[in-house]
Amino acid sequence: MFEFHLDATAGPARAGRLVLPHGTVLTPAFMPVGTHGVVRGLHPADVRRAGAQIVLANTYHLHLRPGEDVIAAMGGLHAFTTWDGPMLTDSGGFQVFSLEGLRRVEEGGVEFTSHIDGSVRTLTPERAVEIQAALAADIAMAFDHVVPGQAPYPLALEGMERTLRWLERCKARHQALPSAGSGQTLWPIVQGGTHDELRLRSLEGTLALGPWTGVAIGGLSVGEPKEVMHRVLETLEPMLPPAAPRYLMGVGFPPDLLDGIARGVDLFDCVAATRNGRHGTAWLPTGRVNVKGAALKGSQEPLDPSCDCETCTTFPRGYLRHLFMVEDMLALRLVSIHNIRFLIRLGEEARRRILAGTFEDWRRGWLDRYHRGDT
Amino acid sequence: MFEFHLDATAGPARAGRLVLPHGTVLTPAFMPVGTHGVVRGLHPADVRRAGAQIVLANTYHLHLRPGEDVIAAMGGLHAFTTWDGPMLTDSGGFQVFSLEGLRRVEEGGVEFTSHIDGSVRTLTPERAVEIQAALAADIAMAFDHVVPGQAPYPLALEGMERTLRWLERCKARHQALPSAGSGQTLWPIVQGGTHDELRLRSLEGTLALGPWTGVAIGGLSVGEPKEVMHRVLETLEPMLPPAAPRYLMGVGFPPDLLDGIARGVDLFDCVAATRNGRHGTAWLPTGRVNVKGAALKGSQEPLDPSCDCETCTTFPRGYLRHLFMVEDMLALRLVSIHNIRFLIRLGEEARRRILAGTFEDWRRGWLDRYHRGDT
Repeated sequence: MFEFHLDATAGPARAGRLVLPHGTVLTPAFMPVGTHGVVRGLHPADVRRAGAQIVLANTYHLHLRPGEDVIAAMGGLHAFTTWDGPMLTDSGGFQVFSLEGLRRVEEGGVEFTSHIDGSVRTLTPERAVEIQAALAADIAMAFDHVVPGQAPYPLALEGMERTLRWLERCKARHQALPSAGSGQTLWPIVQGGTHDELRLRSLEGTLALGPWTGVAIGGLSVGEPKEVMHRVLETLEPMLPPAAPRYLMGVGFPPDLLDGIARGVDLFDCVAATRNGRHGTAWLPTGRVNVKGAALKGSQEPLDPSCDCETCTTFPRGYLRHLFMVEDMLALRLVSIHNIRFLIRLGEEARRRILAGTFEDWRRGWLDRYHRGDT
Repeated sequence: MFEFHLDATAGPARAGRLVLPHGTVLTPAFMPVGTHGVVRGLHPADVRRAGAQIVLANTYHLHLRPGEDVIAAMGGLHAFTTWDGPMLTDSGGFQVFSLEGLRRVEEGGVEFTSHIDGSVRTLTPERAVEIQAALAADIAMAFDHVVPGQAPYPLALEGMERTLRWLERCKARHQALPSAGSGQTLWPIVQGGTHDELRLRSLEGTLALGPWTGVAIGGLSVGEPKEVMHRVLETLEPMLPPAAPRYLMGVGFPPDLLDGIARGVDLFDCVAATRNGRHGTAWLPTGRVNVKGAALKGSQEPLDPSCDCETCTTFPRGYLRHLFMVEDMLALRLVSIHNIRFLIRLGEEARRRILAGTFEDWRRGWLDRYHRGDT
C-alpha cells in the first residue's frame, strides 16, 4: 500500500498526502526520531498527541539492541513499541559511518565495532535491507556510503558511486525477500556531498534504478553553510520526480523546515527537537528560550502562549523551570513535547498556507520574526 | 472543609472517606510522594490515571527551591503543579533531621545547612506552619523533632517531649495565621521511637492539645524490625480516636500497607514505589521482579497481567526491558506508574474487602502469595 497525492503547490513547495500501510501522512511533515524504538523519553501517546503522523527508528541501534530477531519475534516494530501509525527505519548507513569506533569499508559492506560492547559487526546493503524487513516499518531506506560533510570531490565521488552500486543491491534483495509485497517500500538516498555535479549524477543514477515511491536526500545539514544546503536543494529540485515525496534526512531546526519546504521538500527528521528539549532549550515563534533561565522563575505564563501542545496548555512556565532546577525528568519530557509539536505545527501551517496560496509571504514573515526575536 | 466518615471496620482495619477542600479520599489509601512538587518523573495526569486521590509535597525542599513565596505568588501548590486534587505537605522535620549537613537543634527550632547550596537556614515550628500555609495544601503537618530510628530512651524522650512543645506552637501559629479558616487543616505527629511507653505518652500529650482532624505516626519504618513497628502500632491503636484518620508516615512497601491497615492505619506514603521504579524493580502479586532481567527479553506478556495500570495494559514487558537497556527515561516513568498503581490498587482492594467483611482472609492469602513468590 503506497500512494502519494499532490494536493497543491506554491512554486517548488508542495502539499501532499502520503498513504502508507499504517496510515496517511499529510505533508510537509516533520517526523520525530525514535532512534531506539522510542522517541527519547516519550510515550507513544505523547508523540501522537503532539500530532506526529509518522516516526522514525534506527536499524543500526535496533540491530545492536535488542536485535531485529527479538523485535520480529514480538511482531515487528509496531507491536514492540505499540506505535500503530506509519514508521520509517533508517538503514544504519549514517551511524556506521559517523559513530565512534573503527570501521573498514569495502565494496561488500562495512565492518564496524559496536559502540555498545566493541564487538565486530558487518553491515552490507543486503543485511540492512533484511534487518529492516524484520523490523517491518512502512518505509525502509537504502544502505548508503556516507562521507563527511564537505568531503573533497574524490571522496564524495567514491561515496556517491558506491551508494549507487549498493542501491542496486538493496533493491535486488528487497525484491527477493519473502516479505516482498507485504507493503514495505524502499527509498533510495541521493548523495554527492556539496558538489552539485555529483548530486545531479547521484540523482540521475538513482532514478535510473527506479521507479521509487520516494526519494531521500542525505549528507546535508552536517556542518556545511546553510547557503550550500539551499543551493544543493535548488539544484536537485527541478530534476526530482513530482510524483514521489522528497525526504531531507537529518533536518532540522525550525527555519530549516521552512527553507526546505520552499525548495520542494516534503519530509524531515531531526533529533534537535528532543535533544534541545532535554537540555532545556525551547523553540518559540520568536526564537529560542532557555527554560532554566531566571526570567521564567515564578512565571504563570505558558511557555509559548500561541502553542496548543500539552505542555503549553497545561503548565505555567515557572513550573517547567522549577522541574529543571530540581532535575526532574518530567522537565525533559515536557519541553521535548513542546519542541516536537512546534515542528509539527510548522509543517501543518505550511501545508495550510500552500493550499491557500499564501505560503511564501507567510514563510518570509515567520522567518523574519524568528530570526529577529520579536516578542 | 474537613470530614471523615467511617464506612466499615474489620477489627482494627477501617474503610473511611476523607473529605478535603480539593476532593474526597477513600481510605485506606496510598499517597504518592511529590517531594519537589512533582511525583518523580510523572505528569499529574499519570498520577491521576494511576488512581491517586491525594499527593504529598515537601516543605523543606520547596522552601529551598523555588521558595514558598514563589509558589504562593503563583497561587499555591495546586496552581504551581496543576494537580487539582487533595494535597498534603510534610513539615520538613524529617528532612532537617535526616539529610546530610550540619544542624543545631535548640528549643526554638533547627538551624541547618541547605543541601543545595550550603546556606544556613532556620526552621521553627512557626516557620514550618507559615511555609505550609503559603503552599496551601489541604493538610499541613506539625514540625516535629525526629530522632534516629531505635534511639535510646533518653534521646527518644527528648525528641518526643520537644515534639509536643513544638506542636503547641504549631497549633497556635496555625490558628493565628491570616489563612486560618481557609480550609487547611493541621495534623500532629506522634513520636517516641520504639518505646511503647513514650509512644503512649506522645499520643496522650498530642490528644490533650486537640481536637485534631487526623493523627500521624512518625519515626517508624526507619530501620527497626517489622515486629517492632507492628508492636508500636498495636500499642497505639486502641488509644487512637476512631473519628480521625491515621497516617503512618513513610510507609511503605506492599506488605507494609496490608500490615498497617490491619492495625488501623488509613493513610500511607513512601518514595519506594517511584524509587524502585526508577531502578527497574517492579512489584507483582508474587513479589518483586527486575525489569532489566534477561528473562524479560522479547517477552510479549504484560509486566503484571493482573494489573490495570497504563503500563501493563499498553506495553509488552520485553519493550520495558529494552527501554532500560537503552537507558531511555520512559522506562523509569512506566515502571513508576505501575508501582504506584500497585500500591493504590492494594488500598482499593483492602477497602473492598473491609466493606465485604473478608479483609483478614484476603490479607493473609495476599501476603502468603507475595512472600512465597508463587507464579
